[in-house]
Amino acid sequence: MATEPIFKITPIGGLGEIGKNMTLFEMNGDGFLIDCGIMFPANDMHGVDYIIPDFRWLEERDDIVLHGCCYTHGHEDHIGAVQHLVQAFPDLPLFATPLTRGLLQVKLKNARLLKGTDLRSFDAGDELRIGPFKLHSFHVCHSIPDCVGFGIETPLGMVVHTGDYKFDNTPVHGRKTDYARLASFARRGITLLLADSTNADKSGWTQSEAVIGEALDRVFRNATGRIMVATFASLISRVQQVVNVARIHKRKVCITGYTMSEYAKIARKLGYLDAEGDILVDIGRAQSLPPHKVVFMVTGSQGEPSAVLGKLAAGRHRQLDIRRGDTIILSSHPIPGNEEMVYRTINRLIERGADVIYDAIEAVHVSGHACQEEMRLMLNLTQPKYLVPVHGEIRHLHLHAKLARENGIARDNVITIENGTTIELSKNGIAIGERMPGGYVFVDGSGVGDVGPAVIRDREILARDGFMLVSINIDHATGKLIDEPRIISRGFVYLKAAEDFLDQIRENVTAVVNSNHNVNGNRRHLVEDSLGKLIYSETKRRPMIFSIVNEI
Amino acid sequence: MATEPIFKITPIGGLGEIGKNMTLFEMNGDGFLIDCGIMFPANDMHGVDYIIPDFRWLEERDDIVLHGCCYTHGHEDHIGAVQHLVQAFPDLPLFATPLTRGLLQVKLKNARLLKGTDLRSFDAGDELRIGPFKLHSFHVCHSIPDCVGFGIETPLGMVVHTGDYKFDNTPVHGRKTDYARLASFARRGITLLLADSTNADKSGWTQSEAVIGEALDRVFRNATGRIMVATFASLISRVQQVVNVARIHKRKVCITGYTMSEYAKIARKLGYLDAEGDILVDIGRAQSLPPHKVVFMVTGSQGEPSAVLGKLAAGRHRQLDIRRGDTIILSSHPIPGNEEMVYRTINRLIERGADVIYDAIEAVHVSGHACQEEMRLMLNLTQPKYLVPVHGEIRHLHLHAKLARENGIARDNVITIENGTTIELSKNGIAIGERMPGGYVFVDGSGVGDVGPAVIRDREILARDGFMLVSINIDHATGKLIDEPRIISRGFVYLKAAEDFLDQIRENVTAVVNSNHNVNGNRRHLVEDSLGKLIYSETKRRPMIFSIVNEI
Repeated sequence: MATEPIFKITPIGGLGEIGKNMTLFEMNGDGFLIDCGIMFPANDMHGVDYIIPDFRWLEERDDIVLHGCCYTHGHEDHIGAVQHLVQAFPDLPLFATPLTRGLLQVKLKNARLLKGTDLRSFDAGDELRIGPFKLHSFHVCHSIPDCVGFGIETPLGMVVHTGDYKFDNTPVHGRKTDYARLASFARRGITLLLADSTNADKSGWTQSEAVIGEALDRVFRNATGRIMVATFASLISRVQQVVNVARIHKRKVCITGYTMSEYAKIARKLGYLDAEGDILVDIGRAQSLPPHKVVFMVTGSQGEPSAVLGKLAAGRHRQLDIRRGDTIILSSHPIPGNEEMVYRTINRLIERGADVIYDAIEAVHVSGHACQEEMRLMLNLTQPKYLVPVHGEIRHLHLHAKLARENGIARDNVITIENGTTIELSKNGIAIGERMPGGYVFVDGSGVGDVGPAVIRDREILARDGFMLVSINIDHATGKLIDEPRIISRGFVYLKAAEDFLDQIRENVTAVVNSNHNVNGNRRHLVEDSLGKLIYSETKRRPMIFSIVNEI
Repeated sequence: MATEPIFKITPIGGLGEIGKNMTLFEMNGDGFLIDCGIMFPANDMHGVDYIIPDFRWLEERDDIVLHGCCYTHGHEDHIGAVQHLVQAFPDLPLFATPLTRGLLQVKLKNARLLKGTDLRSFDAGDELRIGPFKLHSFHVCHSIPDCVGFGIETPLGMVVHTGDYKFDNTPVHGRKTDYARLASFARRGITLLLADSTNADKSGWTQSEAVIGEALDRVFRNATGRIMVATFASLISRVQQVVNVARIHKRKVCITGYTMSEYAKIARKLGYLDAEGDILVDIGRAQSLPPHKVVFMVTGSQGEPSAVLGKLAAGRHRQLDIRRGDTIILSSHPIPGNEEMVYRTINRLIERGADVIYDAIEAVHVSGHACQEEMRLMLNLTQPKYLVPVHGEIRHLHLHAKLARENGIARDNVITIENGTTIELSKNGIAIGERMPGGYVFVDGSGVGDVGPAVIRDREILARDGFMLVSINIDHATGKLIDEPRIISRGFVYLKAAEDFLDQIRENVTAVVNSNHNVNGNRRHLVEDSLGKLIYSETKRRPMIFSIVNEI
């Protein structure tokens, strides 16, 4: 008795957020993944290093055989969690285009997981067999070379996943988004489209990467001193553009920072970064060149204090410093939540005498994602029956859905879902299936998932008002204090300037203990309660309050 | 022997930052202030409620008589620190236009300082005598009515302070920026211009408030359910625009939230809010109206969790909830640093079923500050000899300076300074004088200035990794532990899930103490050091570590 086929799609990450993209595709006990990336923490996720998709439920599912993970491109939000994926599924084959594969190699090597990982590569346009599944990869433009989307054959028709894309008609590396392949899918009939929603609130068409080259050329022409260009380590196309402009203006290029250097090295080796001759120089050689003969590529365009630009802004870089006459270009746009740190970094660099060029001043950055007109073009090219908007905050998913309905897709055929919600394709059409966990797994230090909401909530309270702890020794016989209460406090008030207040606290604790000496019950509760009230009435703050009672 | 007059200007706040504007003007022992506002804390100023200018040095200067504080307009960043100013200078007369005076009254009343404060009012265009000084006020457009700048007569010529301004030719309240007065100053000759730099990185001309009316009209026409408009409590012009559009679409207006209601009440009483008839209704009446007959004005457009919109997004408002079909308009733009909270609020409102309109989607907000073309117009109208850019981060001040130089002011006549730096005008021209403190005074709860960098740094560490404290009791005679170490920890790991790790910690502490029982020295240091190493090697985290040692 053959059952009707049901093709299931479960976004594990990337919906309702920018980052940690990951999607599960499955049918009849076989499955594969597309992408497995990380997300950067919000400002109130205290102490969290990064966030990975919650795929713990997938590790426990023994009814499914995973045949591989296919990567769309090499940005952190799509490949960044590879070490966690490989630790959970050591035998899983990973499929990637050559550049993406190269970047995965760097990451796996750093995590000491390269040996033993089954890394395979394919070229954009290739057909892939992943277990019983047949995937057609197709090239898309973004802000890194070698990006693909996938057309997945299913008994219910074609399912297309765009990955991150835009329709750049003059891309840095020449290769356009594969209009023809998308059109050929459309001729066969696309049942379901999963499409990038990141820029759904931006009208018009994203500018081509080509405008950046022109803007860089203008800035290089006017700069008389050293030039530093800050961008993401993985923005290989941007590195290429800087190299191209540097060549015209007869400057050497010095790529600084471990990750950016590693990525550039692999990109060059694989032929994705054209830096022939002796245009690339190391930092020693760069330092010896006249200021107008050199450009530095640096990380830290999001204002991260620990990256090169952050160190330069704070005057804490070991080899470089900012000099009057330097021109610094931030070839990036702040990710929401980073604006404050980015602008602080810019202000500090200006204070140090640099001329700072950022995207408000010159077109030194463009988005890597499709704007509304491109989203319409994607819909018109692919003519899907169903659309599930992916990659974006809830507002982006909803705006993408609205746009698709206005563009002619039937109201009920556009489905906005959350991470963990399964979409089921069957001969009856599309349905919403089971709900899996779709939340955050925090990575903090070497701990994965051991810092949860309760710990973050405590950090929030500590961040706001600090804590105070009193330790008291009580005579077992009399119930009275033996010596002065000891106080430990941080983040509450500046203790050295608060001696009177500390005396008041010691008096309060002493009075509470000694006047309740015959109380058998909870002395700790009495002390903490009284202290909390005193502190709030004096300061209007609510630090965490603890007491340790020793009966001696 | 008469000394040559020197007119001194010291920006106390507002340079290198957006907020806490305050400037001191002085000559021959007499002085006056313009504005005294607050600034909102950055995301990493943990627990700080707001920041006020550091005028403590001014309180200590007995060589100067302060004759008054003159206010440019009623926004928080210009009037918000009035209670702190009045506490420091109880006899200081405050001068303000009627609306600004009304808002000051509300603030002083809330702080129980209204009685005893010398509040005076003047009309835009009036001439003011402040001690020996003569000031000419002139009307400017911004995003609140009754805004002024000041032309100050000095023996060294006219000094003009623009306040916050733009050149809106179709403002909501009809009154334009006073071109004629600025031109008349220019005819007499302006020595020094202090001008708003907030939008120095924005090209072109700020759109008129009039476009908001048109956008609101479009949104109101399409809305079938309730409408809620979120904006700042003090944006009286915006409240007026909502009332105007509501009247056209036959909706009643309900102003919610204490501060917004108080401000609207005073604005109406003083004739700055035209809400004739029964268009304003209270929340009880609003709840009883059909959804398409009501619009709510709410606070919280910056994503503040404790404001009305934040509570609605979290489902925690006592009287209102979000229903499917509600249209919510954010008539605002995120202040840098607030983007994350604003977008989170928008996402949550959409999840609750609302249609959310923000400035990326419709022109429901425009800036209140001049863009580059208006800055050029200001320079061309006033033709100052010297320019000191004010109101803005360092990047804005420098871009304003660059623009002014390109516009024809001599390079050395444009001066970018920091808070606390005194500018001296004399017959020899302009010079940079003394440097006063110009930093932040944090207000946290009822404490002013008692939370400084050290406390903030501790809060930062606690926010990142929390703390762990062990308390141990040691036998005085043997130097060995009497009982098990007790552990208190928050914000580090989830203790309930970390029993094994806690055992490991107790064992480590026990081993360190008992193997060093004959050490006279610093047991605490030994324990904390060993614990720190163990914790870092196990978790790669660095919580604050404390120990309490009782010798019994």
